[in-house]
Amino acid sequence: MSAYEELEARFKRMAALGEASGMLRWDMSVLMPPGGAAARVEQLSALQLTTHGLKTDPRLAELLDAAESETPDDIWRAANLREMRRSWVHANAVDADLVDATTRACSTCEMTWREARAENDFARVLPHLEDVLNLTRQAAAAKAAALGRSPYEALLDQYEPDASTVQIDALFGELSAFLPDFLENALTRQSERGVGELPTGPFPASKQRGLAERLMRELGFEFNAGRLDVSLHPFCGGVPGDVRITTRYTEDDFTQSLMGVLHETGHALYEMGLPDDWRYQPVGQARGMALHESQSLLIEMQACRSREYLEFAAPLMRETFDGAGALWDADNLYRLYTRVERGCVRVDADEVTYPAHVILRYRLERALIAGDMKLVDLPGAWNEGMEELLGIRPSEDRLGCLQDIHWYDGAWGYFPTYTMGAMAAAQLFAAAKAARPEIPERISNGDFSPLVGWMRENLHNKGSSGSTDELMQGATGKPLGAEAFKGHLQARYG
Amino acid sequence: MSAYEELEARFKRMAALGEASGMLRWDMSVLMPPGGAAARVEQLSALQLTTHGLKTDPRLAELLDAAESETPDDIWRAANLREMRRSWVHANAVDADLVDATTRACSTCEMTWREARAENDFARVLPHLEDVLNLTRQAAAAKAAALGRSPYEALLDQYEPDASTVQIDALFGELSAFLPDFLENALTRQSERGVGELPTGPFPASKQRGLAERLMRELGFEFNAGRLDVSLHPFCGGVPGDVRITTRYTEDDFTQSLMGVLHETGHALYEMGLPDDWRYQPVGQARGMALHESQSLLIEMQACRSREYLEFAAPLMRETFDGAGALWDADNLYRLYTRVERGCVRVDADEVTYPAHVILRYRLERALIAGDMKLVDLPGAWNEGMEELLGIRPSEDRLGCLQDIHWYDGAWGYFPTYTMGAMAAAQLFAAAKAARPEIPERISNGDFSPLVGWMRENLHNKGSSGSTDELMQGATGKPLGAEAFKGHLQARYG
Repeated sequence: MSAYEELEARFKRMAALGEASGMLRWDMSVLMPPGGAAARVEQLSALQLTTHGLKTDPRLAELLDAAESETPDDIWRAANLREMRRSWVHANAVDADLVDATTRACSTCEMTWREARAENDFARVLPHLEDVLNLTRQAAAAKAAALGRSPYEALLDQYEPDASTVQIDALFGELSAFLPDFLENALTRQSERGVGELPTGPFPASKQRGLAERLMRELGFEFNAGRLDVSLHPFCGGVPGDVRITTRYTEDDFTQSLMGVLHETGHALYEMGLPDDWRYQPVGQARGMALHESQSLLIEMQACRSREYLEFAAPLMRETFDGAGALWDADNLYRLYTRVERGCVRVDADEVTYPAHVILRYRLERALIAGDMKLVDLPGAWNEGMEELLGIRPSEDRLGCLQDIHWYDGAWGYFPTYTMGAMAAAQLFAAAKAARPEIPERISNGDFSPLVGWMRENLHNKGSSGSTDELMQGATGKPLGAEAFKGHLQARYG
Repeated sequence: MSAYEELEARFKRMAALGEASGMLRWDMSVLMPPGGAAARVEQLSALQLTTHGLKTDPRLAELLDAAESETPDDIWRAANLREMRRSWVHANAVDADLVDATTRACSTCEMTWREARAENDFARVLPHLEDVLNLTRQAAAAKAAALGRSPYEALLDQYEPDASTVQIDALFGELSAFLPDFLENALTRQSERGVGELPTGPFPASKQRGLAERLMRELGFEFNAGRLDVSLHPFCGGVPGDVRITTRYTEDDFTQSLMGVLHETGHALYEMGLPDDWRYQPVGQARGMALHESQSLLIEMQACRSREYLEFAAPLMRETFDGAGALWDADNLYRLYTRVERGCVRVDADEVTYPAHVILRYRLERALIAGDMKLVDLPGAWNEGMEELLGIRPSEDRLGCLQDIHWYDGAWGYFPTYTMGAMAAAQLFAAAKAARPEIPERISNGDFSPLVGWMRENLHNKGSSGSTDELMQGATGKPLGAEAFKGHLQARYG
């Protein structure tokens, strides 16, 4: 076996252990009884430490050095080797004690956060969040040294490889210059044309589920290779071949769950379209969280909240819930699904105000990681930032700095990928329509095959063979930019 | 950290990985879509090879030697060390290639067996079963050398530690001498008193489930520490704190599913009652498959098929299914639940004929492992054995040597534990009743607390602190024997 071949075998083992963890996390979120929590932490910790042990095995370093000294005979192999090295650098920068301490601190902090949020009591979770931040800063410093990046960029690199603050500052700067005035105009226009109105329920969960499954199938989701279940916080988990998406049903409003399912189906289609030949190798994985989010937002925001799609879907919705009257017309449902509103809560935000939420979190987490800000000052800084960016002020921390799980669960450096994803979605959708002009009309017939086919060919089956910008260049002719996103907002809300 | 403490940390890690595997197996049986099969094999294989790697780490051998050279200060620690060594011997007797080849051969053979059984085509699965048997014999020979036992006993030791063929021959010999005449008498007596008759359905699955959950709760099953789901082949999986039992509903017969659930609940109660202080250590696990089966049969055969329990349960059954008439009387249901019949299929067998099925398999697998018999001769030998032991001959292999998954899935040396478990159940129930004479009356009120309480104190919380015979001695005053089982059959059917 060559060094490279031995590396493939080792990374395959690590990938399979990672997939085992993913499945156990799905189970934990969907159906595990409370009594299983302690054991599940032990299982996940054992898997993580085992994988860390495999990645820090001195033999792996020797194999990487040996394989890198040979000229790669194939562009995919070269890319795979590069991703193996990235994974090695991240793991070897931190020791097992730090990994374990971080896992346990995050687990404790997240559990406390759930209570603190419910009780609107930031002070209660503050000491645990201090622990998480301290450990995260330790890891960031160590990874920064190993990667030759700043600590914040080292964290970013875990979710969005090679992303830089220079790039993000430029992208977010362009949006910051554009959005405040644009939002004013969009709100004015909306008040002129009138806000969409929600039909009156109840909408039985079983009917919502039936409709969701139908629409998922039409998108190309295969139920012999995946499932749809219920969890408190919707997500897309599982593995290619067994993609597990979840939603949550509210019987007085079917619109949120339905669009949530379509969003998660976008994630699922990316997983289902990854290159099968590289199934268990680093290069065969989704490129990063920005492109992953681009695929969910492509389906949700670009395709399914479009006028074309709602022309198709409105009669199905009406039929499913035995609806009658004008509220079931495509026009009303389109206005409902493109409603713009200043609000404090990120997950309820529309696509015009969403970037402000992300930009706030990006600023704050950079300052916290850099040590330029103390956690005790977070609630105030949050509220001031919201006022500056969106002109509203949360009335309580539950609607402010306590709202998101991310920091409390240790996901620092993740937030920017949401808005990078929104920009990538617009850019990819524009390129797909330019290449296949029939896409909008086909979507108005519920037919996603040209869109998904183009995406599979130009993005999904590329795995991680290039950087995000290289993949965007290949698919759209340009690196990631803000232009298409601004154009999309103009067209829909301007 | 002392050598012993380091061993505890290492075995805890291995236990947690084993529990992760168990959960993934549950998922595979209960809800995994077909597309997930290939990935699941990789996940389970990676976990198994990882654990094998941890067990064959030279450092582990050093630690065991060091810990064994000290005088243990505690009987549980000494027992834990003994079980660690057993686990070490089994793992170190075989190399990773043999482990992996066996896993994959079993997976292939099991999948082929499903088709072969459906098509009644033993020849089709024969070459795969040859592979499995060859690999099993290799492992058995290696483990036999390491354990100083015969190859067959080395396999037995995986499921029922320290079991010997001398012991099993004696126990099964006693049953073989007793059962044939006893069966004749029982059948005569049954024809005199009349066979029970099944009430007419349909019995909706949701109602069956509701009744099952109620009876589980009364047995002491806690739904915040476990679940009840549906799978093709009912089983008890999960971990203490999160015990997962499954059943299968047939809408024209509620009796099988209901009693199946009670059986699995017996397994679950054992897991839920294991000593918490030794949760992730070898000594904290269930002693072996004979005692595990004793706990399911204690609940099913000894307690829940008793006249006392059916007096309690019959009105609940009638109420659940809106039944009317004499078929819902406890008398009829008791005769139904204690029906004796010669049949070809083990899983449908009553407790009088069940041992004949096990004895046949025990004879055949001993001969196959010893090399005294060829697999090609299995169908004929099976049918002759059935004729000799039970006086009936399967009309086709589907009802003969193709009926059980065990050998095709690599579980050789497992079958004897079923009948050892039946004997242990009778012996434990007799001892429990002697210690707490109120048990039968309390069961007739649906109250299992004296029975389960006694079992928890005298068996469950002992974990693997002694051998099966030592635990039986402690709980019943005698090592495992056939006497109580014969007495039970006499009392119920004689």
